[in-house]
Amino acid sequence: MRGVASFCFALAVLCGRSAAKPNIVIIFADDLGWGDLSCYGHPTIATPNLDQMAREGIRFTQFYTANAICTPSRAALLTGRLPVRSGMYGTWNNSATNVMTQVLHADGTGNLPKNETTLPAQLKAGGHYHSKIIGKWHLGIQPDSWPLAYGFDEFFGTPMMHGPNEGNQSVFPDMQLINNTKVVGRLYKDIDIHMLNIQYIEAAVSYIKTRAADDSTPFFLYFAPDNTHIPLFASPRFQNTSARGLYGDCVQELDYGVGQVLTTIKQLGIENNTFVFFTSDNGPDRRPDVCKSLPGEYCDPTTGGSAGLLRGGKSTTWEGGIREPGIGWWPGVIKPGQVTMEIGSVMDLFGTAMGIAGIPLPSDRVMDTVSLLPTLEGKGPSRDHLFHWRGNKLMAVRLGPYKAHFYTEGELEWNSPPLQEHNPPILYHIEHDPSENYPIDKQSPDYAPTMEAIKNLVASHLGNLTYGTPQMNICDKHECLWRPDLPVPPSKPYNCCQDPCSTW
Amino acid sequence: MRGVASFCFALAVLCGRSAAKPNIVIIFADDLGWGDLSCYGHPTIATPNLDQMAREGIRFTQFYTANAICTPSRAALLTGRLPVRSGMYGTWNNSATNVMTQVLHADGTGNLPKNETTLPAQLKAGGHYHSKIIGKWHLGIQPDSWPLAYGFDEFFGTPMMHGPNEGNQSVFPDMQLINNTKVVGRLYKDIDIHMLNIQYIEAAVSYIKTRAADDSTPFFLYFAPDNTHIPLFASPRFQNTSARGLYGDCVQELDYGVGQVLTTIKQLGIENNTFVFFTSDNGPDRRPDVCKSLPGEYCDPTTGGSAGLLRGGKSTTWEGGIREPGIGWWPGVIKPGQVTMEIGSVMDLFGTAMGIAGIPLPSDRVMDTVSLLPTLEGKGPSRDHLFHWRGNKLMAVRLGPYKAHFYTEGELEWNSPPLQEHNPPILYHIEHDPSENYPIDKQSPDYAPTMEAIKNLVASHLGNLTYGTPQMNICDKHECLWRPDLPVPPSKPYNCCQDPCSTW
Repeated sequence: MRGVASFCFALAVLCGRSAAKPNIVIIFADDLGWGDLSCYGHPTIATPNLDQMAREGIRFTQFYTANAICTPSRAALLTGRLPVRSGMYGTWNNSATNVMTQVLHADGTGNLPKNETTLPAQLKAGGHYHSKIIGKWHLGIQPDSWPLAYGFDEFFGTPMMHGPNEGNQSVFPDMQLINNTKVVGRLYKDIDIHMLNIQYIEAAVSYIKTRAADDSTPFFLYFAPDNTHIPLFASPRFQNTSARGLYGDCVQELDYGVGQVLTTIKQLGIENNTFVFFTSDNGPDRRPDVCKSLPGEYCDPTTGGSAGLLRGGKSTTWEGGIREPGIGWWPGVIKPGQVTMEIGSVMDLFGTAMGIAGIPLPSDRVMDTVSLLPTLEGKGPSRDHLFHWRGNKLMAVRLGPYKAHFYTEGELEWNSPPLQEHNPPILYHIEHDPSENYPIDKQSPDYAPTMEAIKNLVASHLGNLTYGTPQMNICDKHECLWRPDLPVPPSKPYNCCQDPCSTW
Repeated sequence: MRGVASFCFALAVLCGRSAAKPNIVIIFADDLGWGDLSCYGHPTIATPNLDQMAREGIRFTQFYTANAICTPSRAALLTGRLPVRSGMYGTWNNSATNVMTQVLHADGTGNLPKNETTLPAQLKAGGHYHSKIIGKWHLGIQPDSWPLAYGFDEFFGTPMMHGPNEGNQSVFPDMQLINNTKVVGRLYKDIDIHMLNIQYIEAAVSYIKTRAADDSTPFFLYFAPDNTHIPLFASPRFQNTSARGLYGDCVQELDYGVGQVLTTIKQLGIENNTFVFFTSDNGPDRRPDVCKSLPGEYCDPTTGGSAGLLRGGKSTTWEGGIREPGIGWWPGVIKPGQVTMEIGSVMDLFGTAMGIAGIPLPSDRVMDTVSLLPTLEGKGPSRDHLFHWRGNKLMAVRLGPYKAHFYTEGELEWNSPPLQEHNPPILYHIEHDPSENYPIDKQSPDYAPTMEAIKNLVASHLGNLTYGTPQMNICDKHECLWRPDLPVPPSKPYNCCQDPCSTW
């Protein structure tokens, strides 16, 4: 399949539009834990569709996000680059917690810099792909930085999550639901929030059907439902269906959505020409306190997902914050029933898509992506290391089976315990000890040579690193301008531009 | 199949020996954690055979042992009764930890009381079954209480685990390997310990082949390999094969053994007449300190298995100590690919076997077993509650999705933290909160009615409870007689009968 694609790419004129490249569908869940699917061992959440996807495809046990929270992870997916290069990060600041500095909030004026090369733009330029994003964007809140400004042909979704954002609606107005560039309405007020994800699923099915009718143009669907970010809502059909409670209902609705997508693809007979990958943006949210501040229906203290046997969760660079379910599916190309322990990253979906479409990677910038095709095809590893950043700090490095923590922050809950530097670094054999319980003794014969290899890798990494302009600094007047075109009332409680950092 | 069996049971004379009842194979691992198989979510242990068994059969996500450690769990399997009834328990004693009081040790003179009705004896009496136990017995260390005294036709294995037991070999001589009643040799000294489990696997395959040749007599194989109890040994073929290290090698050897059993059954064409169930005796061992005292090769601090997202491990009545993988397989009867959240217990394998063989349960004693056939056949729950005992203490009770802890002990490591009574009890919704992180508020509307139902259940349970004579009290001269026929030198460091309890 790859061969055909490459051949057609080389002979584009001869192959023309009639030899369509494979379609690409990326399904990107929100705050789903590594342990939340039945095929990853959850005891009381039923995910028959994702389990079947895994049986028909390949299930990664060591698949990683590019960042432990939302915005930078999504930026890395669409750029194939670490957020610290693209600018989708915040700088550490003693008066701001990591939570606040590193996603775009409702008043955020940062955005994915326009000179970044995005996946949909590349697919269009190199392969005439038609593309749509359905669901959560979160790479620019202002209208001039919505998806159509970055190469997507269509958009149906919201600029960020489905709020109410860190407060209540009297302070933060509801998020807009947008069709391309037009505001369809506001969540809660105009849109039944319980049906939001069902609307997204229907839009995904509809898009696939529409695009499949045009067999000369391949499509790229980036399907990013709000499940399972808090506040939790399940549609009536899924309410009280899961033994796990409301969180389980939402995972089961997500699972249904995946089933609808795959069933549609099969019904249209395009399954041998459509690559689908399922993963999530970061680990499970574990903030009972935040949860309690939300309106009663949304969550209970057991709301957060599970990272299974992994340590930590969302916002941390412990494995629980960055390792995710990862399932690849492409009948006829990916051998069914594979379970792989090879390392993969959300950033690699960029390189994989380029590989599938036969389009070369951008050569004018440093890319952090590789193609996962060798692993998907059962031929072996695609990469052997990963850099785990948070903001402008390189927190941890994975090399082969080892992982070194230079910094840690959060484990029990977000920023608790607080940021700690580790010098010498804490080293784990992450495959022997996936729960990060047993640091390798600094006197052991493994420690020094492994750390030397990791430090060399880091030196080379930092050597070619140009930091992007940070888009998510809040406590810096130059980065945080309150804009009157935003629907944020001046009474909002943490406008850092009116009220400097010291009040955080 | 059950219908046919019952019919033949009723008309035994007419059906005679030519209509053989279904064969029964129980595979009982040792100290395997709930999270240690790939199909239960372990990231770096490959268990393709068990995964396939699950795909071809039914996988339980809430399957429980009857006790958090070895001897009582195995007793419950073979009697269908709680250890506190059969006598396979120890009484709590301030000077003895739970570890010591509740399994038979090398100097143990206790044994499964001879008036207990065992599974092999019932199967023989009611269904002319031929039976064999291969592997670890652990229900009587003395020769007069080896398996053939309890209804098994054949035995190949050891009276207890494969030592060296809590010490070193100069203090504790090696355990005997026994063929029926004859000592074949001693582990380590005469038997290559690395090949012990392979010997067991070969014996299992050989037994199945031999018995299948006699199609008039059904067989019961109780296959209880030593994997994955410490000290860990993998045969050369499996050494360094697992990304998880030595522990993973041992799980993968175990997985291979399961594959050999199932493949043999298929090759013989008896799969539609053979029920196989896989589970383990208790949760993962988490004793790095004990581990460190063993010879170097045996383990490293990361040796213990994983309970996945469950709390605690071996010896505790947190879920990690008592919940186990549970996989049922019976082509043609059990629908393939089922994942069930219904509750099942190791004790229920007794009732299930009786159901399969069409033999009524013993009516002369209180039984704690139910048949799992309704669940195996996808028809619904088999039981809705479970009593979690340790010794003579009722620690916790499961009722529907709820679990109440009356006592807890151990979590980080065996008896740390120490025994604690909870009055009022700690209540969890174990299906919403499988990790037991969020106790239900005692003021919440759920608490009082749920606890009332549980307390009524407990009152009824204790009302019909006759405590068996405890077989595993150590610090009681009447229970702990050092016998000269045992290969334990008088120099052993903790002979409580020479050196009373106070020295513990």
